[in-house]
Amino acid sequence: MDMVKEKEREIVKTTRFAEHCSLSEAVGLLLREFTPAARRTEVMPAADALGRTLAEDVVSRRNVPHYTASAVDGYTVAALSTAGATPATPVVLEPGRFEWVNTGMPIIAGDSVVMIEDTSQTADGKLKIFKSLTQGENVRAVGEDVMAGQILAVDGDPVTPALVSLLLCAGVAEAAVRARPRTLFIPTGDEIVDAKSWFKEEGILAGLVVDSNSAFAEAIFGQWGYEIDVHPILPDDPGRIREAIKDAASRYDVVLVSAGSAKGKRDHTAEIFTDIGKMLFRAVRMKPGRPVMAANVAGKPVICTPGFPMSCAVVLWSVVYPLLTALSEEPADDSLSKSMGSAETVRARFMIQHSSPAGVAEWLRLKIALVDGALLAWPLTAGASVLWALAESDGIALLDEEVLECEKGTPVKFRLTRKVDLPNRLLFQGSDDPAIQLLISLMRKRGADLAIRAVGSMGGLAALGRGEAHFAAAHLMDPADGSYNTSYIEKFASGRSWRRQLVFYRSQGIIVARGNPKNITTFEDLTRGVVFENRQPGAGTRVLLDFMLKSAGLTPEDVKGYERQSITHLEAANKVASGVADATLGIKAAADALGLDFIPIAQEPYELVFAENFDEHPAAKALAGAIASEEWRAKVERMGGYAWLT
Amino acid sequence: MDMVKEKEREIVKTTRFAEHCSLSEAVGLLLREFTPAARRTEVMPAADALGRTLAEDVVSRRNVPHYTASAVDGYTVAALSTAGATPATPVVLEPGRFEWVNTGMPIIAGDSVVMIEDTSQTADGKLKIFKSLTQGENVRAVGEDVMAGQILAVDGDPVTPALVSLLLCAGVAEAAVRARPRTLFIPTGDEIVDAKSWFKEEGILAGLVVDSNSAFAEAIFGQWGYEIDVHPILPDDPGRIREAIKDAASRYDVVLVSAGSAKGKRDHTAEIFTDIGKMLFRAVRMKPGRPVMAANVAGKPVICTPGFPMSCAVVLWSVVYPLLTALSEEPADDSLSKSMGSAETVRARFMIQHSSPAGVAEWLRLKIALVDGALLAWPLTAGASVLWALAESDGIALLDEEVLECEKGTPVKFRLTRKVDLPNRLLFQGSDDPAIQLLISLMRKRGADLAIRAVGSMGGLAALGRGEAHFAAAHLMDPADGSYNTSYIEKFASGRSWRRQLVFYRSQGIIVARGNPKNITTFEDLTRGVVFENRQPGAGTRVLLDFMLKSAGLTPEDVKGYERQSITHLEAANKVASGVADATLGIKAAADALGLDFIPIAQEPYELVFAENFDEHPAAKALAGAIASEEWRAKVERMGGYAWLT
Repeated sequence: MDMVKEKEREIVKTTRFAEHCSLSEAVGLLLREFTPAARRTEVMPAADALGRTLAEDVVSRRNVPHYTASAVDGYTVAALSTAGATPATPVVLEPGRFEWVNTGMPIIAGDSVVMIEDTSQTADGKLKIFKSLTQGENVRAVGEDVMAGQILAVDGDPVTPALVSLLLCAGVAEAAVRARPRTLFIPTGDEIVDAKSWFKEEGILAGLVVDSNSAFAEAIFGQWGYEIDVHPILPDDPGRIREAIKDAASRYDVVLVSAGSAKGKRDHTAEIFTDIGKMLFRAVRMKPGRPVMAANVAGKPVICTPGFPMSCAVVLWSVVYPLLTALSEEPADDSLSKSMGSAETVRARFMIQHSSPAGVAEWLRLKIALVDGALLAWPLTAGASVLWALAESDGIALLDEEVLECEKGTPVKFRLTRKVDLPNRLLFQGSDDPAIQLLISLMRKRGADLAIRAVGSMGGLAALGRGEAHFAAAHLMDPADGSYNTSYIEKFASGRSWRRQLVFYRSQGIIVARGNPKNITTFEDLTRGVVFENRQPGAGTRVLLDFMLKSAGLTPEDVKGYERQSITHLEAANKVASGVADATLGIKAAADALGLDFIPIAQEPYELVFAENFDEHPAAKALAGAIASEEWRAKVERMGGYAWLT
Repeated sequence: MDMVKEKEREIVKTTRFAEHCSLSEAVGLLLREFTPAARRTEVMPAADALGRTLAEDVVSRRNVPHYTASAVDGYTVAALSTAGATPATPVVLEPGRFEWVNTGMPIIAGDSVVMIEDTSQTADGKLKIFKSLTQGENVRAVGEDVMAGQILAVDGDPVTPALVSLLLCAGVAEAAVRARPRTLFIPTGDEIVDAKSWFKEEGILAGLVVDSNSAFAEAIFGQWGYEIDVHPILPDDPGRIREAIKDAASRYDVVLVSAGSAKGKRDHTAEIFTDIGKMLFRAVRMKPGRPVMAANVAGKPVICTPGFPMSCAVVLWSVVYPLLTALSEEPADDSLSKSMGSAETVRARFMIQHSSPAGVAEWLRLKIALVDGALLAWPLTAGASVLWALAESDGIALLDEEVLECEKGTPVKFRLTRKVDLPNRLLFQGSDDPAIQLLISLMRKRGADLAIRAVGSMGGLAALGRGEAHFAAAHLMDPADGSYNTSYIEKFASGRSWRRQLVFYRSQGIIVARGNPKNITTFEDLTRGVVFENRQPGAGTRVLLDFMLKSAGLTPEDVKGYERQSITHLEAANKVASGVADATLGIKAAADALGLDFIPIAQEPYELVFAENFDEHPAAKALAGAIASEEWRAKVERMGGYAWLT
């Protein structure tokens, strides 16, 4: 009995691995399991070794210079022959006792060089010297720079541009450098197609997804300076995946299996890992990136990276990069900043309340702006599947497991992942309009920048009221009298003077599928069982809808889908384009962009509203210039549905 | 008369340019003269654009996802059919009312997905659901990530790995990015040979120099991420150089002419610059790098870079790089740190007195060590021609024009150009021996580091006495009794307890040319008119020489060359190897390294001496391990002339 128990305990022990460990535990497990292997060395032409680390001491093969050379332009002389020479008492040498040399020329006679500035020639070809020289003055001795046999650089030194050029001078053609770990990325999944198939647009069926994680991995490995190969995409065939991993472990130092996030698939991969190797950990307490797991297969680290792009990114940053640097014996300090390519860590305050999940570290994609001296950050809230939010973010925060509710104003420290020109960046909050997005590039051409947060007309005015925006935009109809904006602005400004600028009128209307298959032309038609896509509360378009419904004697209950909320015109129109909804209310530009039909309802004034001290902002002129520019007007007109004041 | 004067003044005015301007004036002149040209755009595959800057807004060509997809593994159902479901009151659905989906699979029927964790299947194929769903729950809408027509990124955005992968998902194959300035480097000089000829060792004549500046420029441009082409080496032929510059100015954005430092050559180049363009400045008040000059030739900047490697480097860092970033509209903040690849600026104190020239900014190559909490830096004093000092330095200081005398202890701020493991770096000062240099790589293998400053036996003991070294080495004979080290150590320690370790005996002897052509075998032979190369005062070898001369009844005046001073054994031996001297006193290892003959004179004990608190240093064990290692002993023995204690 006891022996059986003992045996069982042993089995449990040997098959046990960490589940749901913390990120630092996971990385610790990897670093303890895999130490730099017997150091591999690569020998390559010195110039190719730039940026690498020397694997052995390098010894000069030559004296540099290899001959006695002049260090200046002048005349070679015997130092003794110049004794006592001064400007007042020059020494005069006969021809034959001096010889002209350029800098770098070999010295054949004499033991020193007098600079041309300290001489003059007499009419009869003699040399007047105004300075007394010491032996060897202005002479570069053989080996002055380096000597044959001298150690030039030591095992562990970085190969810098200066070393590349020194090795050349010293006659050293090749350098032995430490080999870097080689990684293979194996994309798997029946639904995954490669970039080539993806770009043949007609061939893309519903359910197929492009292998974007390979592209991300190749790009980021390139930035890190590590080698990566990408395996052809494998179908969800455990046998083939198993063989590919085994083969890869024999030929690479690190193997990444991109296994999709599907639970079924993860189970496959976990089985393979346990079967052909030793599982080290499975699932990490972070969000996203939770499903990552790692094993030791034939002595090599094999890591399963999740399929959602943001999850893949955080695993590459926080698990794979530290492993690579450890395997390469590179300094590990602030590896996260390096892996993200972050040059700066900033401390800002949450502009909105944020709830972080309990017991799980959270990766946040943040945008940032400086308003009235306060550094404000807001998360781009989106799932791990949303790659756009990663590309759009200014920086990334990693909130501790302990962080839960972050009230508005809570400090948040995070790494900037791109250069942000904070003093010259304006923050716009307000009604969504594609014309505003077109301003960004025009602002940049004028040395400024613009961050946009679409929060609806009322959201924008409220943000302005709280000092959380430089300017806002509104198109809010007052149902009392049909007037636009004034009553709302007065309410939110509560006494402050906010400058207003009516930039254009835009056509609002009902957006329906091309050809209007459900024959929707009035608001009454929305009650005929069709699905409507609404906008969020506070959006001017929703205010307009409510007014129109009321005018037609209808109530929200009459409209199927009234509770559905899109945040932007384009998002709402897209619901129609993809068949999820039959109609929405929105601007003509959104209908045009997606090739949808548009039934005009109203011409709305779209007004910008500026904070009280706006004109003191260094980017104020750039914004005015962008709005006044012909380029903006032309771009806006091209979208359709806009009318100018004049 | 007046008109003539006016005319003269005008001529002077139009041909005037800045001479001997400050570095910031020179850069200012360039930046005012050359603004980013009409922006050139390059279109390339998105993945190739990594690290570049977008030249226009990029719009998505697809919805991502392009179909309604499940966000989880589970069953598609109608949300309404799950109303009221809880773990206690599950809802049971008949087959046909639910369907299995993996994450990412298209949703064909139903409007929501229940996660597999919230279900169980009954024996008869029905589905038990324990959670009530809302419409659209666990469903990724079409365009959830990005929508067709949406702006993905804006003119001026960096192309990051996330953007590369987003563009792929969004069906965008190519990106238009800002073109970077293209540079041509034109090496000139009759004495310059290319790397290929250089490596054919037999072909190198006295007076020829390898074109190392091209190698340096190519390497550093590579690190900066700018393109550079290298022109074939041109002879000192003003006509050909003129044509090459004119041609380059028509095809490149920046032209660099490496014109050698010779005054004659500079005059050529200055003539060409004035002849075919407008000279902007000539000579900058800095050392080295003074001879740099720049002109506007056909609207393009043409810069003449000096020929000495350190001068070339400082001009590339401080003049060319700011120009390139300005032409590319890149942020210019701390451009010097970027151009040098410096991640960190440190503030240390001069360990030795340093005199900086008046009215000239000075570039210093520095080494650094942390001793007893003090960050000490010492310049590698060497001319602009000495490339080794640049490769060997830990960092670079740029001292202002105003800086003159820097007493020992004066603070100096400088940029670290390589990673230095300061807490684990030991500073050795003392007697030069190649065996000590072999310790560096062995220290590094043990996670530590070692900086060496050869200052002679007495210099080392004195440094230890001043708290400026972690350990020293001495081989000092007391002429009073022929004993070694003890009397000297007692004097410098003045009561402190310094641990000593006798590591080996080494053969000192007279080093002469191979075959001993001058037949030198005794110290008496040194009085026969041969040239002797001596060592610096305080070197143990010089103390030994003085003792030997005295024993032989000779005086310093009897020895020709007694006043000549080499700092290391190798340097002294090299004087013999290159024929500058006939004999020197030194260790057998130096003679062996250069293939010279060696007449043994003495077996000297070489002792390490450790500061009082040495054993508390984190690198103390690494040093002990390195000294005790078989690897070190084997390497030392291979040099020849060493004997161990046992």
